[in-house]
Amino acid sequence: MKTRLSSLFTDLYELTMAAVYFEREMFAPATFSFFVRSYPKNWRFFIFCGLEEVISWLEKFSFSEEDLAYLDNLGLFKPAFLDYLKNLRFTGDVFSMSEGAIFFAEEPVLEITAPLPQAQLVETFVINTLCFNSLVASKAVRSVLAARGRMVVDFSARRTHGVEAALKVARNSYLVGFSATSNTLAGKLYNIPVTGTMAHSFIESFPSEVEAFSAFAEIFPDNTVLLLDTYDTITATKKAIDLAKRLEAQGKRLKGVRLDSGNISHLAKEVRRLLDEAGLSYVKIFVSGGLDEYQIEKFLEEGVPVDAFGVGTKMGVSADAPYLDASYKLVSYDGRPVAKLSSGKKTLAGEKQVYRFKKNGFLQKDLVALRNETFDAEPLLEKVMEKGKRLKPKQTLGDIKKHIQMALKEIPDELKAIRPSENSFYCVEVSPHLAALQKKIEEEIRLKEILV
Amino acid sequence: MKTRLSSLFTDLYELTMAAVYFEREMFAPATFSFFVRSYPKNWRFFIFCGLEEVISWLEKFSFSEEDLAYLDNLGLFKPAFLDYLKNLRFTGDVFSMSEGAIFFAEEPVLEITAPLPQAQLVETFVINTLCFNSLVASKAVRSVLAARGRMVVDFSARRTHGVEAALKVARNSYLVGFSATSNTLAGKLYNIPVTGTMAHSFIESFPSEVEAFSAFAEIFPDNTVLLLDTYDTITATKKAIDLAKRLEAQGKRLKGVRLDSGNISHLAKEVRRLLDEAGLSYVKIFVSGGLDEYQIEKFLEEGVPVDAFGVGTKMGVSADAPYLDASYKLVSYDGRPVAKLSSGKKTLAGEKQVYRFKKNGFLQKDLVALRNETFDAEPLLEKVMEKGKRLKPKQTLGDIKKHIQMALKEIPDELKAIRPSENSFYCVEVSPHLAALQKKIEEEIRLKEILV
Repeated sequence: MKTRLSSLFTDLYELTMAAVYFEREMFAPATFSFFVRSYPKNWRFFIFCGLEEVISWLEKFSFSEEDLAYLDNLGLFKPAFLDYLKNLRFTGDVFSMSEGAIFFAEEPVLEITAPLPQAQLVETFVINTLCFNSLVASKAVRSVLAARGRMVVDFSARRTHGVEAALKVARNSYLVGFSATSNTLAGKLYNIPVTGTMAHSFIESFPSEVEAFSAFAEIFPDNTVLLLDTYDTITATKKAIDLAKRLEAQGKRLKGVRLDSGNISHLAKEVRRLLDEAGLSYVKIFVSGGLDEYQIEKFLEEGVPVDAFGVGTKMGVSADAPYLDASYKLVSYDGRPVAKLSSGKKTLAGEKQVYRFKKNGFLQKDLVALRNETFDAEPLLEKVMEKGKRLKPKQTLGDIKKHIQMALKEIPDELKAIRPSENSFYCVEVSPHLAALQKKIEEEIRLKEILV
Repeated sequence: MKTRLSSLFTDLYELTMAAVYFEREMFAPATFSFFVRSYPKNWRFFIFCGLEEVISWLEKFSFSEEDLAYLDNLGLFKPAFLDYLKNLRFTGDVFSMSEGAIFFAEEPVLEITAPLPQAQLVETFVINTLCFNSLVASKAVRSVLAARGRMVVDFSARRTHGVEAALKVARNSYLVGFSATSNTLAGKLYNIPVTGTMAHSFIESFPSEVEAFSAFAEIFPDNTVLLLDTYDTITATKKAIDLAKRLEAQGKRLKGVRLDSGNISHLAKEVRRLLDEAGLSYVKIFVSGGLDEYQIEKFLEEGVPVDAFGVGTKMGVSADAPYLDASYKLVSYDGRPVAKLSSGKKTLAGEKQVYRFKKNGFLQKDLVALRNETFDAEPLLEKVMEKGKRLKPKQTLGDIKKHIQMALKEIPDELKAIRPSENSFYCVEVSPHLAALQKKIEEEIRLKEILV
């Protein structure tokens, strides 16, 4: 996963378009704008992730000899175009919000300005990378918010859409506030805390549940979380209590127990009661099994005594919103602002800036403006690459994590609710200049292209 | 993506369990069984994919020095265990259905028998790989079935959960009957046909739509599919007709037009009428934009004249069913069949075989039996690895694709419906011997573990 990701990861139409641009010598600067059109149900904000990956990929953008031989073999492209591709590097500028920024629908998050063929060829990778990383971060933070300070751990490795997806889920969920991941490779690659103890198979492979519990505690006396639901949760709790007492006699403490199935709401209360009655109030209760932010919120509203949540599949595939409705659209070419009018898929023309207004420490509204306009508010897009070179050093995960933690505090509570009111959306305005430009361009297009 | 995938892609608990097995010298053979518990809504069968990837990974299973240094650094594991991991290779047997096999819920698809620590450590990768590949294949085939012989093309690269996911979607959708992919890297890696022409940005970067159309046709005269909805679909159709006539004068034929937004049902009929009236009945209509099997079926039921469908996001992330409820469960250890009783998550004990009964060329029922039982029907699980070595050569994609095409013909129509009747499920029975064994084991567990 650490090797250079092929620049051939692009839709074929990017290459056929680039071939035409090449033939017609259309190398003037083009600006494409990445944005998300709409919110998944119950979402009111997004967290921007994937920028670092995009920058690294753009820095290394190039076609290998093998790539070019493959393209030649397709019989579609002329030798002169393939020669052009051979020497092609990314030499453009990138304006972007910072990794970990809070953003909203209908506002530009990243804009690339580069000679048209380059800006076109990078589309597929840019969308895929920003979309998936931001999707996962924005989904994962909902579990963190629902857990109200309790520990949340990533358990999704077995159900993500491949290994690469699992790594990104571990990374991004950690960034937005998860404490750890079960994914050992992610732990190694990103230096994220890893966690995990035992599965049902462990219990079953021993002649008895008691022997399984004892064996684990003997070998990991400081790190034992007993899984209780292999046969019967309440009976297993009694076995766990016996073991905890034996550990106490050795000066050790049972770390926790885990519930993974059944009526957890009821069982957790019962398990807590039994543990407390046995003087084991320090033994933590971990819960897992099909959790998401809605289930976590429900448990806490019902007063279920849970200390930590293992959140897997539904977060890792973003089950109720498995994709973002994101686009990367041409907004200007050779100094000319452009737009499309496709039904339901209009785009705002021109190079832009987003200004963020705050009030009493909370986000108040964002304003999407033309890049050359200025307002007395924080501009969110800044130049992160110039002429193909990165302008800022790579941020550490720890820095981004801290930044997100601070940024979350500035989001009004009603936008952070797991089930927000249907009408509460953050205000994203369009500047009068941008609105006027857009109107002018749409009228020009109507005159020139439609009323012919 | 072609590098060896780290064996450290495993949940940490697999390693802590393995450490206990190691300390207790629990190296006897364990059998784990992979199966899917239930169908997503409206699905009635699955297509098994990912086996080849699992076999390749198992063949290369080993921890690198770097992996071991990382594990050592966690401070959890003893040196003797890390030494054991250093020399660990996968030496087990794998019984499996063939890549591309049709399978059903609640039946074992793959069983691994290996020394307990090995069989445990491979769990995370095995589930992830079989789950995701089978998910995508089973989702994609629904678009193929809905399209009733019309061409279907994979357009999902920009919205999948990462690049690896995009490659697997291209591979598996091709296997189940897609004609091509837009994903150039997948085309190169798997030798899948690639396709694509132009996006809205292409139209917008030219001074006018007519000039954009002409430029493309000049450079790709045999491969031009004009995108019609950038400004106004009907006006663009008239421009396309003019261009097609100019191409005819040069002895060339416009290949097609593409509709990507708007009321496609209405627009496609109108575009077809205009093309036909102009004597351009050979010009094909491609449709894309948020398609899935439900939309494809709706178009065809409404008689919308579509020749080919570009299916992207909703197939590529399996939007309405983004994961399979799949498990990899211990079913026997050291010759002793085992089971868990966890509420709603029971497992069938023992090493198994699945027998498939057919009637008049159609699948009739499957029977899940103990592996040593025999029935007068086709056994679906066969040994594909022995003592860690692959028993059969790698199949070509073409062979698997053909196999799936044949296998689909044997599925009764009611199970292939996009909206099947709520009660029509394929019959999967459990053999009397297996049922008796299961009952016996559950009773033993109750006596030993619960009524204590």
